[in-house]
Amino acid sequence: MTQLDERPAAAAATTDTADPASAWLATFEDALTARDVSRAAGLFAATSFWRDLVSFTWNITTVENPDGVADLLGANLDRVDPSGFRLSEPATTEDGVTTAWFEFETAVGRGRGLARIIDEDGPKAWTFLTTMHELKGHEEPRGVRRPMGAEHGANKSRVTWLEKRQAEDATLGAEAQPYVLVVGGGQGGIALGARLRQLGVPSLVIDKHPRPGDQWRKRYKSLCLHDPVWYDHLPYLKFPDNWPVFAPKDKVGDWLEFYTRVMEVPYWSSTVATKASYDEATGEWTVEVEREGMPLVLRPTHLVLATGMSGKPNIPDIPGMDVFRGEQHHSSQHPGPDAYAGKKVVVIGSNNSAFDICGALWEHDADVTMVQRSSTHIVKSDTLMDIGLGDLYSERALAAGVTTEKADLIFASLPYRIMHEFQKPLYDQMRERDRDFYDRMEAAGFDLDWGDDGSGLFMKYLRRGSGYYIDVGAAELVADGEVKLAKGQVDHLTETSVVLADGTELEADLVVYATGYGSMNGWAADLISQEVADRVGKVWGLGSDTTKDPGPWEGEQRNMWKPTQQENLWFHGGNLHQSRHYSLYLALQLKARHVGIDTPVYRLQEVHHLG
Amino acid sequence: MTQLDERPAAAAATTDTADPASAWLATFEDALTARDVSRAAGLFAATSFWRDLVSFTWNITTVENPDGVADLLGANLDRVDPSGFRLSEPATTEDGVTTAWFEFETAVGRGRGLARIIDEDGPKAWTFLTTMHELKGHEEPRGVRRPMGAEHGANKSRVTWLEKRQAEDATLGAEAQPYVLVVGGGQGGIALGARLRQLGVPSLVIDKHPRPGDQWRKRYKSLCLHDPVWYDHLPYLKFPDNWPVFAPKDKVGDWLEFYTRVMEVPYWSSTVATKASYDEATGEWTVEVEREGMPLVLRPTHLVLATGMSGKPNIPDIPGMDVFRGEQHHSSQHPGPDAYAGKKVVVIGSNNSAFDICGALWEHDADVTMVQRSSTHIVKSDTLMDIGLGDLYSERALAAGVTTEKADLIFASLPYRIMHEFQKPLYDQMRERDRDFYDRMEAAGFDLDWGDDGSGLFMKYLRRGSGYYIDVGAAELVADGEVKLAKGQVDHLTETSVVLADGTELEADLVVYATGYGSMNGWAADLISQEVADRVGKVWGLGSDTTKDPGPWEGEQRNMWKPTQQENLWFHGGNLHQSRHYSLYLALQLKARHVGIDTPVYRLQEVHHLG
Repeated sequence: MTQLDERPAAAAATTDTADPASAWLATFEDALTARDVSRAAGLFAATSFWRDLVSFTWNITTVENPDGVADLLGANLDRVDPSGFRLSEPATTEDGVTTAWFEFETAVGRGRGLARIIDEDGPKAWTFLTTMHELKGHEEPRGVRRPMGAEHGANKSRVTWLEKRQAEDATLGAEAQPYVLVVGGGQGGIALGARLRQLGVPSLVIDKHPRPGDQWRKRYKSLCLHDPVWYDHLPYLKFPDNWPVFAPKDKVGDWLEFYTRVMEVPYWSSTVATKASYDEATGEWTVEVEREGMPLVLRPTHLVLATGMSGKPNIPDIPGMDVFRGEQHHSSQHPGPDAYAGKKVVVIGSNNSAFDICGALWEHDADVTMVQRSSTHIVKSDTLMDIGLGDLYSERALAAGVTTEKADLIFASLPYRIMHEFQKPLYDQMRERDRDFYDRMEAAGFDLDWGDDGSGLFMKYLRRGSGYYIDVGAAELVADGEVKLAKGQVDHLTETSVVLADGTELEADLVVYATGYGSMNGWAADLISQEVADRVGKVWGLGSDTTKDPGPWEGEQRNMWKPTQQENLWFHGGNLHQSRHYSLYLALQLKARHVGIDTPVYRLQEVHHLG
Repeated sequence: MTQLDERPAAAAATTDTADPASAWLATFEDALTARDVSRAAGLFAATSFWRDLVSFTWNITTVENPDGVADLLGANLDRVDPSGFRLSEPATTEDGVTTAWFEFETAVGRGRGLARIIDEDGPKAWTFLTTMHELKGHEEPRGVRRPMGAEHGANKSRVTWLEKRQAEDATLGAEAQPYVLVVGGGQGGIALGARLRQLGVPSLVIDKHPRPGDQWRKRYKSLCLHDPVWYDHLPYLKFPDNWPVFAPKDKVGDWLEFYTRVMEVPYWSSTVATKASYDEATGEWTVEVEREGMPLVLRPTHLVLATGMSGKPNIPDIPGMDVFRGEQHHSSQHPGPDAYAGKKVVVIGSNNSAFDICGALWEHDADVTMVQRSSTHIVKSDTLMDIGLGDLYSERALAAGVTTEKADLIFASLPYRIMHEFQKPLYDQMRERDRDFYDRMEAAGFDLDWGDDGSGLFMKYLRRGSGYYIDVGAAELVADGEVKLAKGQVDHLTETSVVLADGTELEADLVVYATGYGSMNGWAADLISQEVADRVGKVWGLGSDTTKDPGPWEGEQRNMWKPTQQENLWFHGGNLHQSRHYSLYLALQLKARHVGIDTPVYRLQEVHHLG
């Protein structure tokens, strides 16, 4: 029970005014209490970052420097009425930076934060993270607040737990409308559904597959998670300590199904949403769904798209696709290698999906060619786990007291603006460690990159969600020539082949388009309208002005887990880590609206790109 | 990750020779290393107890006083070769008793222990618990040893996790025989199955119900666990912290079903064992089973009966049972109250099942009479939870650092010989707290008791597994006369009524025999032979020479979780706490045999009673 969010509030709090963190917090609170915005802003370093996860701003947003802090406080301070700042554990100082874990409260909620204090004419905040973890009066029924379960006494109108669940199932979507409809029941939808259930927000998660977990079960058979177990926990219920480091897809599928039932997530399988529209007058969505083929209409107040952060399959429009006589499909539709032994397969693309598919096809004796159209960033899985994640998510981290919850907040506390600077040295280490491997890849003609600024995989993930491969073995097949490598753009297809721009002709029985995905607002275009998709704009990316992540600078993931320009439309998703961590803030935003708490949004997402 | 069994061995160990515990441990180890049995025995108090859970004795046994210690060491010391005794956390002293958590190892395993040291001409052990938690070279793949899951690299003969599981399912019971067959897949069988799986012992759990968890689902609908959540965890995977204090039966059923899947317990549903015999020459059981109606023969080396610690239903033989025209069944067969609204029901018995059934029938408007044949011990659930378990199993205990694992060892460290002395004051407190309630029960004519020696519910459970009711509300119905009370033995049944010894005639449409259960060796009689059942003798009970627990003193639960007089036949079960904790020691005994470690049993169970 060392989880950060399970610690009794009274336990570890300390206030040692001698250390710079305590002094800073006390001064900060004084300024806030006095509503002295400029004094509070003056406690931040000239270059500084305040990231807020819904506690001050009802948004996920980062402001920079004293000016930004003054703007945030000017807009929110009176309403938020923050107080009770105190260290939740002794602060530590290293290399002139004091790291301080703290707790605080606002008029409506309780928060946790992490500050890094430096000396710049006195103690100043360099990074400052504030997060809300619960709403006052709406605390989750956990630990000392857990439900009794048994209803003691004798009661002639007793309704059992099972009867309650059955009655709920029978009325949901008919007499009872979900306040929140979550479209997509992968790890994102399930994690959010669990949090909403726990918070008592009437919700429903729908998914097209027959069973929770099928999103994983139905993928190619050798698939395992590329992220390690410590990074992958869902909320409330951690994987047991015999869980594999990289869990096989079917085991993940079983866990998700188990989790959905145990957490009592209202979940409709074999259900697709076909059309949705929002009525501004009533503030309600009309969503047409088909549940096991039967049409019905749902009327939720909020609509969450959790259909995959990778968005809709990006299928290129290549001349000759209509004349090609073999099989062709997008990587997301690839059924796995079993049917392709002895076949010639051309895989267009050279990122994660392309490598995984090439590797599995090679294992099943297909004749595989990968077409690399642009450079790829590759990191070996073990190396990434060790150097990239090991300090936060590993047995080593746990032994050092860094629980998953603490790691999530440390991770969240690093401002996106400067995160690449922290990332670069890690990737320099990785490159050095696996230099032989990279030399062999280049010798095989493979074009490598490390991101526009050398900041590596995680920044690529945050900026564009593509452009990399976490190597679990298939890269060696390219280095060895077992999987053939072709390079350049695809010019056209013939009846039997793929022809590249340089004239190279690759015979093919099967063409796999491992060509990535569009922005998630493409889902909104399909389900709602192009108008709404355009109003919301591009989803994902930081505005880093790097490849596939055009500026201006956003400071946060565009449109993720926070209000969008379309009222009551939300986007949720990401990897298991993000699904776990950010589902909390999305759930609190929805809960607050459900119970009528005023939720003015500071710095609502602006739209600079349509998709 | 504060679980005791998850703590890295290197972490918290301290050796402070200034405290009496460290000094005692060092002296004890010196004596053991010198093989000086009498010096080691001399370190125990004149009245003292050494309880060993398989680490020294390959048995679950308690020896008493220096003589007993000398006997244990004389028989086992050379083989066990114990060493490395050290405190695992600083010892604490209160009221002259120093409590010391320690670690140690033996020739084949690693152990944990808990000693209470008193001053009796120098530091002497008063209670001394030694437990084995792992076998050297057979450590469980958990934490830093967890499996990788993904098999990195490219491999043309790759077999996925799912394919492995499917192949295993296809061959188990045919080409591949389980080394251990566990009959009964309730919480006991499942917990043991999970541990054996984790230890790599080829095993199979069979159960008659269609799905794991049906053992709970199929019981009466208002049933909730009578023990609180902190006491009820299964091994490896704790209930999440939103789990109800007293979980409803269907929720427990769902948990067991998914636990079985997630822990990959080999489990055959809809399977009954019909006949078993042991071949001493081959050391193998022949077990006839029917799996979904299809007969097949299994040949396990070990047979574990986990069919319920309450054993076979005890149905009285009452004159007139053959002429009674209404419905009659044992409480274990009771389908719940729904069909009995408006009916006259006589429930014979006044323990847990009787009260639960009477309460549910009353809630469904049956006309219910309870027949009390002998006195009953009643404790209110809230009171029991607070006073009886709160120091070990509660949020309060967790906040004080008493994890479930630690609580289990504290519990295990209290010698059965003197446990009643620790229990009595708790029950005195309970009686005082709920005096009004007890007065009302007595005023209603109900006969109460507190155990032969006033030691209350837990001792009754350990001694006889019966004679009490944990009140969740139905007792008030008796106090209020809503459930009618009749008293005395049943003389006979007529066509339409139950007639008591005093001539009282109770009209009945339904008679429920809430008359308890026989000893678990009754299962062996049915499945194997009466001869084997008699050879094994009575199961459960301590030999306390109290009602339904005849002497001589055994010192441990008879025949539970340890070798019996029938080679390779084992009994497993108990409540969720016991299923969790003792499954470890049973699993280690089976694992040791599977890998050929010498397991001479010290003080094999003697048989004094047949059932």
